[in-house]
Amino acid sequence: MEKTRSLKLKPIGTIHSPYKHRREAPYQGNRSEDISQIELFKEFEEGLKDIEGFSHIIVIYWFHESQGYSLLVKTPWDDTLHGLFTTRSPYRPSPLGLTVAELIDRQKNILTVKGLDALDGTPLLDIKPYVVPIDEKAGVKAGWFEGKLGKSRG
Amino acid sequence: MEKTRSLKLKPIGTIHSPYKHRREAPYQGNRSEDISQIELFKEFEEGLKDIEGFSHIIVIYWFHESQGYSLLVKTPWDDTLHGLFTTRSPYRPSPLGLTVAELIDRQKNILTVKGLDALDGTPLLDIKPYVVPIDEKAGVKAGWFEGKLGKSRG
Repeated sequence: MEKTRSLKLKPIGTIHSPYKHRREAPYQGNRSEDISQIELFKEFEEGLKDIEGFSHIIVIYWFHESQGYSLLVKTPWDDTLHGLFTTRSPYRPSPLGLTVAELIDRQKNILTVKGLDALDGTPLLDIKPYVVPIDEKAGVKAGWFEGKLGKSRG
Repeated sequence: MEKTRSLKLKPIGTIHSPYKHRREAPYQGNRSEDISQIELFKEFEEGLKDIEGFSHIIVIYWFHESQGYSLLVKTPWDDTLHGLFTTRSPYRPSPLGLTVAELIDRQKNILTVKGLDALDGTPLLDIKPYVVPIDEKAGVKAGWFEGKLGKSRG
């Protein structure tokens, strides 16, 4: 469909994090206890109503420092080339980042979260509630990832 | 940052589903046993290498039929107004859809999945592997969602 050839997004906020450069960011947010702040632009603050009741949120953001991509990539976990869509590499055709972060605090339009691995200044695109019956699955097999990460849940 | 004021995305494929109109789509994909097909554009096929080893994938797509949004919304689950970012409403400032779908089969650039609630013709933006230590969390509290959905996983 021609109308969807190029899709335009506008950020709804900015992520403030301890990671100024990619080399400082953890490979996966759940390995980190670091604290970040999500600043929603004021115009969207009302959309956070009652978010305090949620312990975890799905944060979608723009990999603003990631230019280009390869369809086969090496990851920090082994020396094998993996299909890009079986990895969480930030270098993707659609540079969309996704992390389930722990919500620690909210003050008006500012959310304090733990476990978000986005770089400082990252444009925020969306926040969704993390809900177990929707987002967790049973009997998961994770291909080449199996055994590469700890089994404990974060 | 001015450079991130408007962000452009290009779809990497198209979702083919049984849902021709929004009224036919389930509220949440995990409630459905319906089968959809994800057609990755041929140029991205190499990025699917070894995806067969994964039982579940995170599918990110564009809510192409959703225009506009409200910051306070009613959901199918109750009669209360909820903050938009505590809901999975398709009407969002960044119209990004997210579903964890079960991967049933792959034939070249076509993935057959179960539990994807996207409309037929939905532009595909990204596929990420669903990995338990990264994407599942312990001690989840889901605010107003609590008790609204079944507790069973799947």
